[in-house]
Amino acid sequence: MPAVDKLLLEEALQDSPQTRSLLSVFEEDAGTLTEYTNQLLQAMQRVYGAQNEMCLATQQLSNQLLAYEKQNFALGKGDEEVISTLQHFAKVVDELNALHTELTRQLADKMVLPIIQFREKDLTEISTLKDLFVLSSNEHDIAMAKYSRLPKKRENERLKAGVVAEVADSRRKQHLSSLQYYCSLNALQYRKRVAVIEPMLGYTEAQVNIFKKGMETFSKRMEDFLSSVSNMIQSIQRQLDEETEAMRLSQQELLSGNDSVYFPDYDVASPQINRNLIQKAGYLNIRNKTGLVTTSWDRHYFFTQGGNLMCQPRGAVAGGLILDLDNCSVMAVDCEDRRYCFQITSPTGKSVIILQAESKKEYEEWICAINNISRQIYLTDNPEAVAIRLNQTAMQAVTPVTSFEKKHDSLRPDSNRTKNADLVHTENITQRSLNAPDDVALIEPGTPIQFDIVLPATEFLDQNRAGGGRYNTHSLNASNTTVL
Amino acid sequence: MPAVDKLLLEEALQDSPQTRSLLSVFEEDAGTLTEYTNQLLQAMQRVYGAQNEMCLATQQLSNQLLAYEKQNFALGKGDEEVISTLQHFAKVVDELNALHTELTRQLADKMVLPIIQFREKDLTEISTLKDLFVLSSNEHDIAMAKYSRLPKKRENERLKAGVVAEVADSRRKQHLSSLQYYCSLNALQYRKRVAVIEPMLGYTEAQVNIFKKGMETFSKRMEDFLSSVSNMIQSIQRQLDEETEAMRLSQQELLSGNDSVYFPDYDVASPQINRNLIQKAGYLNIRNKTGLVTTSWDRHYFFTQGGNLMCQPRGAVAGGLILDLDNCSVMAVDCEDRRYCFQITSPTGKSVIILQAESKKEYEEWICAINNISRQIYLTDNPEAVAIRLNQTAMQAVTPVTSFEKKHDSLRPDSNRTKNADLVHTENITQRSLNAPDDVALIEPGTPIQFDIVLPATEFLDQNRAGGGRYNTHSLNASNTTVL
Repeated sequence: MPAVDKLLLEEALQDSPQTRSLLSVFEEDAGTLTEYTNQLLQAMQRVYGAQNEMCLATQQLSNQLLAYEKQNFALGKGDEEVISTLQHFAKVVDELNALHTELTRQLADKMVLPIIQFREKDLTEISTLKDLFVLSSNEHDIAMAKYSRLPKKRENERLKAGVVAEVADSRRKQHLSSLQYYCSLNALQYRKRVAVIEPMLGYTEAQVNIFKKGMETFSKRMEDFLSSVSNMIQSIQRQLDEETEAMRLSQQELLSGNDSVYFPDYDVASPQINRNLIQKAGYLNIRNKTGLVTTSWDRHYFFTQGGNLMCQPRGAVAGGLILDLDNCSVMAVDCEDRRYCFQITSPTGKSVIILQAESKKEYEEWICAINNISRQIYLTDNPEAVAIRLNQTAMQAVTPVTSFEKKHDSLRPDSNRTKNADLVHTENITQRSLNAPDDVALIEPGTPIQFDIVLPATEFLDQNRAGGGRYNTHSLNASNTTVL
Repeated sequence: MPAVDKLLLEEALQDSPQTRSLLSVFEEDAGTLTEYTNQLLQAMQRVYGAQNEMCLATQQLSNQLLAYEKQNFALGKGDEEVISTLQHFAKVVDELNALHTELTRQLADKMVLPIIQFREKDLTEISTLKDLFVLSSNEHDIAMAKYSRLPKKRENERLKAGVVAEVADSRRKQHLSSLQYYCSLNALQYRKRVAVIEPMLGYTEAQVNIFKKGMETFSKRMEDFLSSVSNMIQSIQRQLDEETEAMRLSQQELLSGNDSVYFPDYDVASPQINRNLIQKAGYLNIRNKTGLVTTSWDRHYFFTQGGNLMCQPRGAVAGGLILDLDNCSVMAVDCEDRRYCFQITSPTGKSVIILQAESKKEYEEWICAINNISRQIYLTDNPEAVAIRLNQTAMQAVTPVTSFEKKHDSLRPDSNRTKNADLVHTENITQRSLNAPDDVALIEPGTPIQFDIVLPATEFLDQNRAGGGRYNTHSLNASNTTVL
């Protein structure tokens, strides 16, 4: 193929097949270029799309980092540190997002736009001019065919002039459209070279520019922040390691003990019972009337709170009042042939609840504790010491009963209080009584206990019922309720 | 809510509602964390996805740039420069792709993987432990219910021991699963802080690292390349501007001429006819027999090539041989009442073609040219000079005929050659005859022309038919075919 580089405008009027043939070479070139341009545009739009998606993604990531603060985590340990670190990271991501956004904009302006314009303007123009050229060429052919058939002799001058004008008109049109088409195709040979290179120049410049800006933005400052975050992570990891080791040891210790802890009534033969308790907590079964004759037993967690017996089912957030224990009577009962059952009766005798403990020790301690509480000694300054004193006094005053269990069916609260006193021999109690001898001395054994300010039982109950929020539901120690 | 930071392993065995309540706080926290982690993972995977897509996009772009070379563009002007520039850009994009690939890999390893591991390992572990805990807790409840129903007196020792062992077993299980669950939940409070921060550290480090590498890779070297590309684009743009201006002027000039060029027979009154042509080209209508009695006229481009008359329809790539003009006779004919018709007859009289010119000037020039060619003067060293001499001689030898048109029906080739000689008066011819007086002098007027080497007509035709490629289809000047 000869080295041709342009269509000669001078040959447009003649419009020979040779010129047409050369034109078709230019057209083929334009066609190949159009196809290539479309493929290149597609590749460039994909790069642009990825960059744009990166903008959106970093935007979402930044928002997600900031959202940590609004998560309402139930536990807030270390949250401030995490939140402030994530806020810092969100700022970093925002800055990255700004760079990505700038790069996206530059890719749009300097890469995608020029090649789209090239396609929409130059290539589309050529396609349009080609259509016009073909149209005018066809018009000329039609006019020429008509002209060629003009008769030789019997000439109608008017008809002839009209046809000649038609040929001239269409030939002028074709000439004009050819010239424009040729010019466009010639110019395309220059634009072709720019069209593919210019967007790549824009792309590369934008990318290098972003590397430069990225370096400026993040170089020194970022290192400090990142190393501090790295330290923080290491520090948390160390804390976790320490905690894990501590938990491992604690677990080992808890599991290395006697397996007896898992057996509900393992010490039934010789339970060590503390009779001086003025508070108690633990699981008990409670007997419920579910119908006129049917009953059910529910295992709930019970605990005393001041003079109240509270019940908290396992799923409940807080305990609810079951009974005001002041001046109640408590006694062992036989119920549905279950073991370790006892009954608490309110002073008026109107409220009666029947509970079942899981072991002999629990059974006796609950009875003692409720008995102690019913005597309101929890309201004294040192109720435990008072309980010890009372039980010691009782122990000295009555004939010991060797087997509590044999007689528990007929026990009255009063006799119970005295008869089981001989079993008070735990080390715990001895220790406690030694710790508070002065307070205990204030109260004479056997004397009724006087209080300066005592709330009436009804008022106390009302207060308890109304103000459930007063109780610390996460602590087993409910003795904080102080009167006076 | 009180500031709690861990579940106490010591409280696992007791399993009070308070502990459960605290547990539920940890569980809620873990639930919120799981949800947040999933959202954060989604955001991070989106960033990773965008980065990965950028890899694929740059890969495609690089391939597309290299594909330019394989496009088989019909025109290659400036291609080497474009190709080498695009290859350079492809290398740049490859380097960018390498950076993007490294960043993608780092994001996968340091951002997405840790948070996926956290979700799959830690959060899934918690969820599994919770299931185990609930399971063992239920088992324990069932065992306890059975245990609580153990009869008081009529004790079957074996049954009792079995139930107690069941309680102990389930209680041990629950204790163990609680301990593990508590430990995991406690550890989660540390992991939680690391889990969200560590991936962000990885992300930021990877991103800063890429900025650094990008700068190192592209800073200086790139600037030189980009400025040279920029210069190249400007230079092409300047060339285009110059070319555009040249085309504009050329177009202006072409269009500023007389409108008469568009009128097919504008000079019919006094056409300036060159009778000394030894070659001619242009559109003619040719008469075709389409059936026994029907005919059609097709407008094709005809040109002489040596002693041959060639025809090239507009869409054809090359011309085809119509007739060997050597010793042919040409004469005006009346055909279908069309104007400007003439007929060429082969020496044997077997081939006859009828053609129609679009104007009087064309008509006469075609007849003259074919007449000249039929006398084989195109084989002489200076055929144009010979033609002039022959026509001048003829003009001097015969009586002028005032109107060629009136008599053209009865013209014989021989008489035609002499009778229309008086019309040779164009400036063009005069000039040409002055330029080549010496060559012309070698041939005596009227004498037969002798050639050193002459191909027989049949051989010449065969050669032409077989070797169509010999003809330069893009040039109107077909006189390059040299003999001797």
